Amino acid sequence: MDELMGIAIEEARKSLINEDIPVGALIIHNNIIISQAHNEKELLNDATKHAEILAIEGACKKLNTWHLDDCILITTMEPCMMCSGAIVQARIKKIIYGVSNEKFGYSKILSEKYKVECIKYSDDSKIIKLLQNFFKDKR
Amino acid sequence: MDELMGIAIEEARKSLINEDIPVGALIIHNNIIISQAHNEKELLNDATKHAEILAIEGACKKLNTWHLDDCILITTMEPCMMCSGAIVQARIKKIIYGVSNEKFGYSKILSEKYKVECIKYSDDSKIIKLLQNFFKDKR
Repeated sequence: MDELMGIAIEEARKSLINEDIPVGALIIHNNIIISQAHNEKELLNDATKHAEILAIEGACKKLNTWHLDDCILITTMEPCMMCSGAIVQARIKKIIYGVSNEKFGYSKILSEKYKVECIKYSDDSKIIKLLQNFFKDKR
Repeated sequence: MDELMGIAIEEARKSLINEDIPVGALIIHNNIIISQAHNEKELLNDATKHAEILAIEGACKKLNTWHLDDCILITTMEPCMMCSGAIVQARIKKIIYGVSNEKFGYSKILSEKYKVECIKYSDDSKIIKLLQNFFKDKR
């Protein structure tokens, strides 16, 4: 798991180039990464281009289906309402997320209402530092 | 309003060609339709391609910004969690929807938690008929 979250963190770093909040996401299918993406909201000037949405889009393309039942989504940050809705739409049954998003996170609703298994990754120190540096530079 | 919802319904009908659930959405800016789209989930085999997401994407492209604060979203169906999240992400302050979506609709959360003005369009008979025909044919 550490290796996969490490890849998601490296993916998140790519968001920094465009001054996007650093978030990275992967989709795993049969133990293989089939899609990975980072937040491109600012780069593309498009409110829908969160890492998770782009990763789901990539996985749908790769598998040529919108049924991602057998996939696991790994993301550096707890998904927002939009991305949680996309997880439900794609029928993803399991997610692993790095840092909690107290204000905008929807993992509680995902797990309680939609029975998506939501696992909080324990070692989130690198991700917290990445986000802290981003917001410090923004001020 | 009747004219605009009429255009959204015509947009929704386009979904039928690909056996997608008929949903159409428009984005209005300064009283002009700047974006319109229909549900293309089945056509594109992509869980994220709901009418509202595609309409927001189109509007962001048109205005070259993800801040759609001054835009109104019109949709034939009450938005799901994913599309409601996209409305929040795009800072849209007002939506008008046709039929209610008792099971998957998020207008209550949109209005109560995110202070988005959500207006239910009164004359939803045409939309109900369109959806009933779609699901009847599916059986």
